[in-house]
Amino acid sequence: MPASPTLADVQAAARRLDGVAVRTPLLENARLNERLGGRLFVKAECLQRTGSFKIRGAYNFLASMSEADRAKGAVGWSSGNHAQGLAEAARLLGMKATIVMPADAPALKVANTRASGAEVVLYDRVKDSREEIGLGIARETGATVVPPYDHPWILTGQGTAGLELVEQAQALRVTLDAVAAPCSGGGLATGIAIAVKGLSPSTAVHAGEPAGFDDLARSLAAGARQKNERLSGSICDALLAPTPGDVTFPIARQLLGPGLVVSDEEVLDAMETAFREFKLVVEPGGAVALAAALTGRLPVEGRTVAVVCSGGNVDHATFRTALERRPA
Amino acid sequence: MPASPTLADVQAAARRLDGVAVRTPLLENARLNERLGGRLFVKAECLQRTGSFKIRGAYNFLASMSEADRAKGAVGWSSGNHAQGLAEAARLLGMKATIVMPADAPALKVANTRASGAEVVLYDRVKDSREEIGLGIARETGATVVPPYDHPWILTGQGTAGLELVEQAQALRVTLDAVAAPCSGGGLATGIAIAVKGLSPSTAVHAGEPAGFDDLARSLAAGARQKNERLSGSICDALLAPTPGDVTFPIARQLLGPGLVVSDEEVLDAMETAFREFKLVVEPGGAVALAAALTGRLPVEGRTVAVVCSGGNVDHATFRTALERRPA
Repeated sequence: MPASPTLADVQAAARRLDGVAVRTPLLENARLNERLGGRLFVKAECLQRTGSFKIRGAYNFLASMSEADRAKGAVGWSSGNHAQGLAEAARLLGMKATIVMPADAPALKVANTRASGAEVVLYDRVKDSREEIGLGIARETGATVVPPYDHPWILTGQGTAGLELVEQAQALRVTLDAVAAPCSGGGLATGIAIAVKGLSPSTAVHAGEPAGFDDLARSLAAGARQKNERLSGSICDALLAPTPGDVTFPIARQLLGPGLVVSDEEVLDAMETAFREFKLVVEPGGAVALAAALTGRLPVEGRTVAVVCSGGNVDHATFRTALERRPA
Repeated sequence: MPASPTLADVQAAARRLDGVAVRTPLLENARLNERLGGRLFVKAECLQRTGSFKIRGAYNFLASMSEADRAKGAVGWSSGNHAQGLAEAARLLGMKATIVMPADAPALKVANTRASGAEVVLYDRVKDSREEIGLGIARETGATVVPPYDHPWILTGQGTAGLELVEQAQALRVTLDAVAAPCSGGGLATGIAIAVKGLSPSTAVHAGEPAGFDDLARSLAAGARQKNERLSGSICDALLAPTPGDVTFPIARQLLGPGLVVSDEEVLDAMETAFREFKLVVEPGGAVALAAALTGRLPVEGRTVAVVCSGGNVDHATFRTALERRPA
């Protein structure tokens, strides 16, 4: 694997994921298109195995490891979706997995990670260092650390969603003006950018982030990595990584357009729209790119745009809150 | 079109619907499979254009009409999903459509039907005859009546969902022991039965119905058409047809296994499971076959079973009620 992954690496990941990852549908809605004055496609990664795109990168990583390393197991840290993806990827490959999760992660994500057979170690998001806990487990057991985003095997795995998206658009004889994906550490957005730019160079690629956690948008604007001021406090629990990755940021600078930043209220509105118009359950962090399209930060008028709805692992209470945004 | 439609008719309908109907995904969930002790697939027709399978039959019907008839428009009656499917099919073909809808249909379904450009005429489900109103409009305007289920063009259009389902199962190298679909007048269930039995004769096909509106289950058991005692009163607003159709019942007798009957409470539980495990928004009537699988009425243990989740057009309030069944 070269330092800077290419379209060919994403295509190799797609072959590893064949029969493992769901080829999630690319959906559109005539009524919404009319309202927006353009064509908006949704890549429904919330329908992916484990309820988010994360199994793509995790499985690609584990399947790329040597057999000797696989025998020693995997360890990872995650606010929830990488946890579930990694745990399920390990189960599919018959491997042991240990997952370090924040104590305030949604109960559903913790329960689902355990249900895949992984051992879960909880930590305090503000006081503890998940990296230190995870690295300690790796030292003790010989397990390989599977990072949530900052590794070529992870981001090329996530990029397979972008490969599918472009192939699906081409099958509809559609050329995309822009693609946007949610961004935490940047694994999904950069992986998708490699795939999209490789297959369709004229398509702009953007990353969406929640307000207050817009480290990538500010880093792209400044030309150097910036940090978020806070470590928690958005409903987008999946998008709280403090800063762009060592591996992902150079790729983001090269391939991504300006960042798209949305408020928690706009995210709740987007979740309600996904419910009403697309019949999809989207979690807050999974809905930021859709929110950018619905609010006009990512213009749809007169254009053809695709957004990735990256996950659907949302607690009942949060989903009820979203439904209250526009009760019918 | 012969009196008794065949697999070839469903395949012809699939060609008409190519590029119009979404090829909805066939999903499964490892955790749920483990709990059920078998493999359960969900055909997510709630992701279909207009939020239900109904556009398949409506579009196939309109596309099969003569050009002269198409110029005079279409009229239909429906509790909501056929209305939306017919209105959107007419819009796609540049036709005028008038839809007779019950006054107690979900507000969302009425609004969406109007949004597709159709004229909506409301009636009282208990006092009025929707057939009389619709036939009156047809006499006055020369419009063609597009029935909700009881016509070969309708049921072969709906059957394309079954064609896809079997093709998708075959692509996964899976042989299905049973397939179940929700049933009101029987268009979807019989269309699917023709496709499934044609491609996979050993697969049993069942129809799911809500308790109190189990006219098909009782008709199959009795060997003659039975009527429901009530015309309203289930949360499954899409499944309240009073009796099996003239066209659909003989096909049902020939191809369908025993009927599956579930309570409204079981339907709400199934909607919550679809939310939690499949990230799908399923309306009550769309969830009856899933409910049958989850309650064991359609056994999954030791078997491979597929259920159609046929629609997702549910009001916010009803969905909130489903989420309260098992709050996390």
